Amino acid sequence: MSTVASLVREEDAASVAAPPRDIRIALLGLGQVGSAVAALARTSTHASHRFAVASALVRSPERVRPIDPSTLPLTMDGAAALDTRPDVVVEVLGGLEPARTLVLAALARRIPVVTANKSLLAAHGDELIAAAARTSTPLLHEAAVLAGVPFLGTFSRRPLASDVTALSGIVNGTSNFILSRMAADRAGFRQALLDAQQAGYAEPEPSKDVDGDDATEKLCVLLRHFAGISVAPALIDRTGVGGVEPCDLECASSFGGAIRPIVAAEWESGTPSAFVGPAFVASSHPLSRIDGVQNAISLRTRWSGDVFFSGPGAGPTVTAATVLDDVVEAVRLGGTPPLLRATRTVTSCDVPVTGWFIRLVADDLSDAQRAPATLTRLGVRVRRVSPVVERYGQQRQWVLAGPCTDAHVRAALDVLETTAGCRTRPIRAIE
Amino acid sequence: MSTVASLVREEDAASVAAPPRDIRIALLGLGQVGSAVAALARTSTHASHRFAVASALVRSPERVRPIDPSTLPLTMDGAAALDTRPDVVVEVLGGLEPARTLVLAALARRIPVVTANKSLLAAHGDELIAAAARTSTPLLHEAAVLAGVPFLGTFSRRPLASDVTALSGIVNGTSNFILSRMAADRAGFRQALLDAQQAGYAEPEPSKDVDGDDATEKLCVLLRHFAGISVAPALIDRTGVGGVEPCDLECASSFGGAIRPIVAAEWESGTPSAFVGPAFVASSHPLSRIDGVQNAISLRTRWSGDVFFSGPGAGPTVTAATVLDDVVEAVRLGGTPPLLRATRTVTSCDVPVTGWFIRLVADDLSDAQRAPATLTRLGVRVRRVSPVVERYGQQRQWVLAGPCTDAHVRAALDVLETTAGCRTRPIRAIE
Repeated sequence: MSTVASLVREEDAASVAAPPRDIRIALLGLGQVGSAVAALARTSTHASHRFAVASALVRSPERVRPIDPSTLPLTMDGAAALDTRPDVVVEVLGGLEPARTLVLAALARRIPVVTANKSLLAAHGDELIAAAARTSTPLLHEAAVLAGVPFLGTFSRRPLASDVTALSGIVNGTSNFILSRMAADRAGFRQALLDAQQAGYAEPEPSKDVDGDDATEKLCVLLRHFAGISVAPALIDRTGVGGVEPCDLECASSFGGAIRPIVAAEWESGTPSAFVGPAFVASSHPLSRIDGVQNAISLRTRWSGDVFFSGPGAGPTVTAATVLDDVVEAVRLGGTPPLLRATRTVTSCDVPVTGWFIRLVADDLSDAQRAPATLTRLGVRVRRVSPVVERYGQQRQWVLAGPCTDAHVRAALDVLETTAGCRTRPIRAIE
Repeated sequence: MSTVASLVREEDAASVAAPPRDIRIALLGLGQVGSAVAALARTSTHASHRFAVASALVRSPERVRPIDPSTLPLTMDGAAALDTRPDVVVEVLGGLEPARTLVLAALARRIPVVTANKSLLAAHGDELIAAAARTSTPLLHEAAVLAGVPFLGTFSRRPLASDVTALSGIVNGTSNFILSRMAADRAGFRQALLDAQQAGYAEPEPSKDVDGDDATEKLCVLLRHFAGISVAPALIDRTGVGGVEPCDLECASSFGGAIRPIVAAEWESGTPSAFVGPAFVASSHPLSRIDGVQNAISLRTRWSGDVFFSGPGAGPTVTAATVLDDVVEAVRLGGTPPLLRATRTVTSCDVPVTGWFIRLVADDLSDAQRAPATLTRLGVRVRRVSPVVERYGQQRQWVLAGPCTDAHVRAALDVLETTAGCRTRPIRAIE
């Protein structure tokens, strides 16, 4: 249909037509992600470069892998992998060691490092970033959070955009898939988890995802990146999604919102407050629309209000594409020193004041019916009350309450439990 | 509450504590955006740099401006502005000339250029990008589309992420504000436009925004960026938002969607197809939630599925912050050559096959009632039909139809108009 003409002028065309340079990669790890990196590196073509795997570090050469390892220069020796004159080291081993030691060794030799390892960054980020700064060596980790959405590197280069005072997000696709499946099919948690495992979205041992540990590590990466705050994952308040029941999701929907696995933090006052866990999200909040394995983040910026990013959060090929883009950036950045940002370590992290979505369970209908008025008398601002429904032979009711502190809501719920015959389960609510 | 300890090690602290370098800016233009750049440049502080306006080019020194110009080194001579040894030229003049000539002069002298001028990029992008490539000089324009959301520069550095085959977005805040206001308040177009003007979201002469010209220029910038396609704005099918009526928005809402000012393009087959105009957006599409002056873009990527970005699209301070971040990036990039991408010029642009949201107006109730069945007989896949309502003494009805070509839907509507006593107004529908 269209007449197509080359627009690139002669001298530009010459530089485009120059033979692509080889980017040599030392690939540390050849599991799901590492295999995808090796496969995509082989097929990805670009006018200016192509990728070559100079070495691939594995623990067991005999293991069955998604890629045929006989075509790759395998080694079981980390030091030997770094000795292959790589332009970039790609660390996709996962876990803390030997990843930490090898990344430090690469940075000491001024070899740029790309990693997708949020556990490593959460536990040793300060040490690794300091090592990278000392030698002006790129250390990129775009795939560590929202693996398919490039945004971390962007903000690290843009000081005004990265003047951020609060963030909230959905950063664990497994948990979001489980809650979405429970809401759509009224499935129980165990069935939804099984579905996630069968779809390849959850590990056989899923506790790191469903208990909130993975999300907490990612929140630590985000806090260092956007707040200049270094905080140990153990200091952050977290709740797993395992306690959410299908009837909680039904009620959330009847209140016009959804229950999502949320990470949130704010630090405008200087002291950070943060939480990780399932939360009621009002329909006005963009995170209420993020379904399935999608991930998203909302940043409250000083100069541009709220900015929002969403896309796939994980998956071998998604992660591999992001890792290889980091490889290209690392080579092009070369020795450009990173924009340093002072980091401070905090030894405690508050919990924020939020609204609450509270499940009330009573054996007796009148106990359930009286509970919301009791909460009001105890100073909890009750905004919405669901009808009482009978489930599993018990009377169930939900209350959406306005912002108050943990201490306040827990004291009020203690009164309900000890004097009014109610069991209660509060989760946070955000707007 | 928290014990705070500095984490930056001694040698890093030394580099943080080094005196910030001055980044000298030649500021071309001192209107709303230029004044905001000058004001923010003065107050913005960073450990590694500070900004200094080396010259500010104005047409009329006497004009009243948002900033006191007496504190700035004003000049009326563009060549003199470039002679002040700037590190970066910031072009916020708007329009084509003298912007084009001055940007080319700066690039010829290897002075990095930052511009927010989508008209300039739409009309002369090929020439400017070629000039920047010839001298390996940065030419950054993050603020040209979705001014408050950094994403263009990110993708230009990441070849795998930028393997995009289609995009859709809301890129004109004025039009989106008007349609949102009409939907929320059942206001007419003229009242909503007045509200937009009073809120400072629309110009006194609003035709460029409401007729779709601004959105079309931005779509041209996006097509060059993500598709490597250079297309003249005049070749793109566009419709203004002026023909939308409050009852269209009511019906869209009753169908579970919204009418938004959309730009959309796809080029997977090689030949691009694109449109600009108001469209029915199903509630499943993330653009259906983007209200008011917010802007957003959804990119269909080859490796990471759909990724989505939203945030403020305009505003002097928002734009100024993005421009100054580009200034920092331009200085740090220095002579790093851009990742070249071959660009091809197309001399025609198809329109895509989409669904349709059709307003049917008849004087006679039975004419209106018969119209949907007539459309079905003519091969239009009618998916939803609204009740007939009487408005302005006429019978009005809306039909949501499945995907078909422009030619097909227009032929069918011609039949309705000539034989069935109906006036019709189709807009596109996307899911």
